[in-house]
Amino acid sequence: MPVPTFHGRIQATYGLTLSSGESPEARAKAIAFEQTVELPPERVSHELVSGVVGQVERLEPGEGDRWLATISYSSTLAGGNFSQLMNLLYGNISLLSGVRLLEVEWPDDLLARFAGPRFGLEGLRGLCGVEARRPLICAVSKPLGLSPRQLAELVGLLARAGVDIIKDDHSLADQPTAPFRERVAVCQKAVEEVNRSGGTSAVYFPSLGGRPRELLDNVGYLQETGCRGAVVIPFYMGLDTMAGLAADSDLVLLAHPSGSGVFFDPEHGVAPEVYLGQVLRIAGCDAVIYPHAGGRFRMDEAAASAIRSNLLGELGTLRPAAPAPGGSIETAALVEWLDLYGPDSVFVVGSSVARAEDPKAAAEELVSTVREAFV
Amino acid sequence: MPVPTFHGRIQATYGLTLSSGESPEARAKAIAFEQTVELPPERVSHELVSGVVGQVERLEPGEGDRWLATISYSSTLAGGNFSQLMNLLYGNISLLSGVRLLEVEWPDDLLARFAGPRFGLEGLRGLCGVEARRPLICAVSKPLGLSPRQLAELVGLLARAGVDIIKDDHSLADQPTAPFRERVAVCQKAVEEVNRSGGTSAVYFPSLGGRPRELLDNVGYLQETGCRGAVVIPFYMGLDTMAGLAADSDLVLLAHPSGSGVFFDPEHGVAPEVYLGQVLRIAGCDAVIYPHAGGRFRMDEAAASAIRSNLLGELGTLRPAAPAPGGSIETAALVEWLDLYGPDSVFVVGSSVARAEDPKAAAEELVSTVREAFV
Repeated sequence: MPVPTFHGRIQATYGLTLSSGESPEARAKAIAFEQTVELPPERVSHELVSGVVGQVERLEPGEGDRWLATISYSSTLAGGNFSQLMNLLYGNISLLSGVRLLEVEWPDDLLARFAGPRFGLEGLRGLCGVEARRPLICAVSKPLGLSPRQLAELVGLLARAGVDIIKDDHSLADQPTAPFRERVAVCQKAVEEVNRSGGTSAVYFPSLGGRPRELLDNVGYLQETGCRGAVVIPFYMGLDTMAGLAADSDLVLLAHPSGSGVFFDPEHGVAPEVYLGQVLRIAGCDAVIYPHAGGRFRMDEAAASAIRSNLLGELGTLRPAAPAPGGSIETAALVEWLDLYGPDSVFVVGSSVARAEDPKAAAEELVSTVREAFV
Repeated sequence: MPVPTFHGRIQATYGLTLSSGESPEARAKAIAFEQTVELPPERVSHELVSGVVGQVERLEPGEGDRWLATISYSSTLAGGNFSQLMNLLYGNISLLSGVRLLEVEWPDDLLARFAGPRFGLEGLRGLCGVEARRPLICAVSKPLGLSPRQLAELVGLLARAGVDIIKDDHSLADQPTAPFRERVAVCQKAVEEVNRSGGTSAVYFPSLGGRPRELLDNVGYLQETGCRGAVVIPFYMGLDTMAGLAADSDLVLLAHPSGSGVFFDPEHGVAPEVYLGQVLRIAGCDAVIYPHAGGRFRMDEAAASAIRSNLLGELGTLRPAAPAPGGSIETAALVEWLDLYGPDSVFVVGSSVARAEDPKAAAEELVSTVREAFV
């Protein structure tokens, strides 16, 4: 068999939590074989070992009793789709324990096969007509259970208050209380009316989903209705579905992290800065909602900061995606967050507006807080 | 707002690991709100609380310091697709810690919206021409790195040895060493030749994936080539994609658990008997590969047994799916497994045949072991 020519190698660093007496060398080697040929070393030919099996590039002690193992894989093994890319990086080893994917270096030839965000942060700014270097403000149309008319009123109110992006709560789907098409039509109309009368460019992003045929129909409906983006759940909808939407839908994809928390165990899984910060960007998400540190979800400051750096930093020729911190952001505490995160952010303020006695006043306060911080 | 009429309720039981001093009542209530209206209780109207918010139905102490909370959700909240169904059952709470979905009771009106397996265990038996009450034998075409010709030789050898199903290793995608179309064509031809000359009905299931358009093309190619099924990775490809394939492709879907291990933390995530045993069946997988207890992956006997019961047991009018234990099953130990699992199984024997010095003899021994056990 001719040994294929491989151009780039993915460098994947795993944190290993070993059982007592376990050899870090043996563990790292087992992962390199498991994730590629899925055979024990003694039955793999020399040609396959050198051409196909992952190579342990570095092995060093980490914090406490953990070890860090960097394993490189030929980028051609990812086979051109995201399910295989993730299967290569974190497939069978998910069924073990104490293996956490901490960091990935992506070779250019791999990144070149994936287009990344179609709009990204700058495209989203352009759509919302926000040229100033200030953060974008995203408020949420919620909760599940309201009628289309009630949701459209809230959407209109938020747009009039000066919010840039109004997104559906990600739990809004096609429920009888507010069927998808009916809800989208009236909410989009509400935003357009505000824009027309006020000269603004607010956008409404409905929650989008569905089995493949229905998803295509729903995308078509959003395009007809004039929606420019949608809220999606990559963890459950699948990364290849994201890439398909990015390539074909012309919608801004605002990714919600629902479900993805199962990746974020401290000893096992995939680090949030890899999954939310890199993988979703490579898969074409234009903005990625993530739990900010100190909110009601599990996220520390180092990880939140790394998600942000990865979404914005250099990654081949891929456009930067917008970091969208959310999860219990209170307007009262926002000044501090504005200072910490700076202008390249989309602040997702959901319940603190939706639960206010006077949502209109709460939304106006939110908008003026952000604008005054970036005069 | 009129309170909608709800017909069925999903009963979801979560295991809660509490921090010291935390109230189980408050924790359960917080989950019921988080997973539906995503608002704190004080700002939700009475109508929404009674019609939309999850209801805590039972709360009782579990093992150790854990609690069991059963929360019911109106089945209409799932909104007709799997991403929303999973978002409802295990969405934002994935971003917390110490919340594990242990058990789900599915109301009939929900199950009626999802078709489940198109073939199931009996359909698969029929395709393979195995009417006898014996387990089906599935061997694996591997490893990644072999050429199409080498893989086709192995496929032919396995078919001649009397294996019922020969599946691609799930890491075979569209890599340069064995491009998808070329590999599928020669492997399918190899099986057909053996069937023609030997009067057998072995089937070859290639590994299937791709971004949405490419996936459709690949499905079309499998149909043209005469393949009757495929290996899929539901965790990464997405459950709605599974349901789409089940509805439209006419392929037997053999689900591989790659990636899904991140769900299976003992304190957080989704129990394997729910995800692998119920959710994948509802999403249309005909056979589900799962790690058998005592193999190289993390799985205990109780969970393995519950996966099996859930795949085979009554679930609305859905067809039973085939339990397919795998992961280091050795022919030598198979007699014990045959006894334990009985005839309604697909035994996936991968590396112990592929790594044998003489794969032909190993496959023949495997086949005769199974047939002799079920004379």
